[in-house]
Amino acid sequence: MQALLDETREQFNQQLTRLLEQRTALAPRLNEAMHYALVLGGKRVRPFLTLQVGRLCGANKHSLERAAAAVECVHAYSLIHDDLPAMDNDSLRRGQPTCHIAFDEATAVLAGDALQTLAFELLSTNDKALDPTRQLEMIHVLADASGDRGMCGGQALDLAATGMKLPESELAQIHIHKTGALIRAAVQLGVLAGHAEAQSYRAHFDAFAHYLGLAFQVQDDILDVVGNTAALGKTQGSDLHANKATYVSLLGIDGAKQRLHDLHHKALHALSKIPYNTHILEAFADHLLNRDH
Amino acid sequence: MQALLDETREQFNQQLTRLLEQRTALAPRLNEAMHYALVLGGKRVRPFLTLQVGRLCGANKHSLERAAAAVECVHAYSLIHDDLPAMDNDSLRRGQPTCHIAFDEATAVLAGDALQTLAFELLSTNDKALDPTRQLEMIHVLADASGDRGMCGGQALDLAATGMKLPESELAQIHIHKTGALIRAAVQLGVLAGHAEAQSYRAHFDAFAHYLGLAFQVQDDILDVVGNTAALGKTQGSDLHANKATYVSLLGIDGAKQRLHDLHHKALHALSKIPYNTHILEAFADHLLNRDH
Repeated sequence: MQALLDETREQFNQQLTRLLEQRTALAPRLNEAMHYALVLGGKRVRPFLTLQVGRLCGANKHSLERAAAAVECVHAYSLIHDDLPAMDNDSLRRGQPTCHIAFDEATAVLAGDALQTLAFELLSTNDKALDPTRQLEMIHVLADASGDRGMCGGQALDLAATGMKLPESELAQIHIHKTGALIRAAVQLGVLAGHAEAQSYRAHFDAFAHYLGLAFQVQDDILDVVGNTAALGKTQGSDLHANKATYVSLLGIDGAKQRLHDLHHKALHALSKIPYNTHILEAFADHLLNRDH
Repeated sequence: MQALLDETREQFNQQLTRLLEQRTALAPRLNEAMHYALVLGGKRVRPFLTLQVGRLCGANKHSLERAAAAVECVHAYSLIHDDLPAMDNDSLRRGQPTCHIAFDEATAVLAGDALQTLAFELLSTNDKALDPTRQLEMIHVLADASGDRGMCGGQALDLAATGMKLPESELAQIHIHKTGALIRAAVQLGVLAGHAEAQSYRAHFDAFAHYLGLAFQVQDDILDVVGNTAALGKTQGSDLHANKATYVSLLGIDGAKQRLHDLHHKALHALSKIPYNTHILEAFADHLLNRDH
């Protein structure tokens, strides 16, 4: 699995670099900042999901690459903006200076804005392998997942909850939107790019993505406490120090590990209902939820 | 013309309010900030163009309303982010506190982000009156106009040019992208929502929008010097004080007025090649380019 992940990441990074280098830059520094944020580091969880789910569903390779790049553009833009001084004020991300440190705040705001736009430009590019109606649906899914009722809304809930003691249901609401919605969109894009028959398993793929996304966040909270700064690429315990509600602060370390186990199981159960060879997705979930950084 | 503009603005504002009130807010404060930035004030130049051009081209009313709202979402998001302390650091816009003053910086960043997403959500909404391929083209036009090769790129050029003495060609490059691209997209969306025959006049509509957009910016620079703060809703001379290159600093007040006159003429000339009754668009150009705020 690690070899497959490394290979996918390597290919995907090359594809992103080609994509940005092919663009004639109007304002070179802006494009450098977009490239910096988009290409450096990252586990590429979302593109991996789009590519692998799409492959299972018989999607065209180029359509999938574009969809995977679009999802990662949205993810990268959200990280740039989350790291800004007015938001989380982080100077380190994936072991590198964050975009507004490496460039400047104004450029970071604009690079985030332009990466979001690029996502929709990519998804609306003329694609003979896709039915236009399906392509519109993909755009709508990504927009719905990333706007005020998805990722941005989750981020706003998170800001509002800083310093508050939340019940688990409200903590889950934050994560379901802040990180879960985009992970679900990544999977949905893979299904939507696929053949007609695959559409009947959309709900099962979506359940898999939902539980995987939530488990991923629980694991993140656990790592924030037990991980180490070098492996994480961010300051260990930074979420606790920021006085944020986490699964660990709510359930304790053992309770959080139990929750992770339950969610992991539910994710695999959803996969078991899909009559394709989902072995790679199972292995990916196992790998992701047993990671140490 | 003023009556028609007022009526259009009134109807459009009601439509925007309905649109936002119909959405179940996940994070109410975020949606309040989006509503604040989107609905309060504004000349509604871009929606007016989309609606009127689309009407001329025989487009469906509801398709046009959605397209007009999408363009205004992009415009509103760009204003929120431009006003941020890291960018232009403006506390007043259209005579009202800017979004980050009325709310806070983090909410303003997110409200801008979510308004951009909303634009693409609107344009990708299932629309029986539009051919899906045409709808995809509309999304692509808006993305192209607002990203790194359009509005965001122009804003980045503008930031890079602060304090520099530019030749007119470079000043035009900034405005063609920073404000012109979205005005052109507003017109293109109206044409694209129209019937097949209208597509053959797309280049003429585009030339009209191009010259109108540039003339609008020249007029803005003139008003920044000769207008008054109350009518403008922003501090008079603020661009000059910020040491920004303007048409007035470059050409002098008379030279700028001459350039405005030339561009206005070119815009009308482009309209004259379209075999529809473009009277309203002519009157709009006259009104816009003779405005005093």
